[in-house]
Amino acid sequence: MKLLRYGPVGGEKPGLLDASGALRDLSGHVADITPAALAPQVLARLRAIDSQSLPKVDSPQRYGPPVSGTRKFLAIGLNYADHAAESNMPIPAEPILFTKATSCIQGPDDDVMLPRDSVKSDWEVELGVVIGKTARYVEEAEALSHVAGYLTVNDLSEREYQLERGSQWDKGKGCDTFGPVGPWLVTADEVGDPQNLDLWLDVNGRRMQTGNTRTMVFTVSNLVSYISRFMTLEPGDIITTGTPPGVGLGMKPPVYLKAGDVIRLGIEKLGEQQQRVVPWRRVD
Amino acid sequence: MKLLRYGPVGGEKPGLLDASGALRDLSGHVADITPAALAPQVLARLRAIDSQSLPKVDSPQRYGPPVSGTRKFLAIGLNYADHAAESNMPIPAEPILFTKATSCIQGPDDDVMLPRDSVKSDWEVELGVVIGKTARYVEEAEALSHVAGYLTVNDLSEREYQLERGSQWDKGKGCDTFGPVGPWLVTADEVGDPQNLDLWLDVNGRRMQTGNTRTMVFTVSNLVSYISRFMTLEPGDIITTGTPPGVGLGMKPPVYLKAGDVIRLGIEKLGEQQQRVVPWRRVD
Repeated sequence: MKLLRYGPVGGEKPGLLDASGALRDLSGHVADITPAALAPQVLARLRAIDSQSLPKVDSPQRYGPPVSGTRKFLAIGLNYADHAAESNMPIPAEPILFTKATSCIQGPDDDVMLPRDSVKSDWEVELGVVIGKTARYVEEAEALSHVAGYLTVNDLSEREYQLERGSQWDKGKGCDTFGPVGPWLVTADEVGDPQNLDLWLDVNGRRMQTGNTRTMVFTVSNLVSYISRFMTLEPGDIITTGTPPGVGLGMKPPVYLKAGDVIRLGIEKLGEQQQRVVPWRRVD
Repeated sequence: MKLLRYGPVGGEKPGLLDASGALRDLSGHVADITPAALAPQVLARLRAIDSQSLPKVDSPQRYGPPVSGTRKFLAIGLNYADHAAESNMPIPAEPILFTKATSCIQGPDDDVMLPRDSVKSDWEVELGVVIGKTARYVEEAEALSHVAGYLTVNDLSEREYQLERGSQWDKGKGCDTFGPVGPWLVTADEVGDPQNLDLWLDVNGRRMQTGNTRTMVFTVSNLVSYISRFMTLEPGDIITTGTPPGVGLGMKPPVYLKAGDVIRLGIEKLGEQQQRVVPWRRVD
């Protein structure tokens, strides 16, 4: 099942993508795709609906983040061995955990705004894991039963803020617009094995990143189990699981995003995103 | 004005503490102390209520976190020069920003649970700043106008998780129960200058930390302005601003929390907390 939220920012309605690729309105069955809507029994109820009975919605529509009310947006660093190498960092002995501010979450195709005075904004295609059932000290063998589904994430990163402004990375990871997620939350049953998904990212039509989740250092099961020993994972939480090689920081010389660039990225089964990069502007 | 939430976990009602120290029910005027309730115009409306007209609530009552729905719980590291020294770390050239998981937020007197297998859990009394008005690239001179009020925070920290499990601190900062806040959110008008508040913390009746916010490296104005250049601060967000010397990590040899310990802490004008330290237990 491909769950989604469509409509203007802050006014999104719940929907799903049916087998023919048509957008269907789910608002007769669920008020929104909230953390509570990701519970296994709610997903089972939604899955039982005949999608052809749902109102069809004209496309194109803006997609919002496919889940609202995410409380934690966690991220894993250097989780592909070859990306660690291009970043001149060792393969970590255990997962590196940092946090993206929830205020950076946006729809998959919304503009990415360069922070004011930013000169080192970079891209990262990543598999995002969405929690459906509270996870606290879960064993690896049980970990995937706590996952509602998966989505495409662009873990945008300002490298100067992340790496040159003190030891902690969060400063460069949660800038406004730095968390496009979606277009869909694809439920775990439809994805199958999360460790065999192709990922790719283009900037201005040029292929920058190519990878497959099979080369992750720590698998989704490892990560859910591991993080759940440090904090409780709650429904709606998103874990973005690290990026394969090909980021701007790793180029010689490094290449960073500039206004006017267009980023396209996608993950097998999870759908594609496209963002225009725009200069900083006051939005309040 | 001292805003608070009282009652059982998840069933808190809004209230305030009147001038005589009596607990008054605010639920006839506001459904909850949410981020939206911290807007200047809502606070002005609440301030205009004659507190003697509000229903008196029998004490003692459990206090919950004085604001619900916090989306970001941000924290500043090494913000007192003498604490940096005891931690064997240099005074930072600019604020060190990390994140506490929102799932660690709890009431001021709720039990603190040691993480399973934790051997280095530590205490940190800190001034917490609660945002009332969205802050994005705000100047220092305007920064305090974005602050709804202040509260006492115990920034509990597992030092092994924070410092010995990779470079990023978040792993040791967001464990369940590691974020007692309150008892009250004291509005900024009542606090006055946030840079002249005494702080203290006792473990088992022994004074461990004594400080005053005047010795902060970066003031509240500095911090709100600074962080707002990296991410948007939203109403309800809490910034905990660093701890004065006297943490367990800084003792020779280090002293860490153990089950049965009692922590008491407080900040001038902002009220006191008391937590029992309990062993890890399964709560789900």
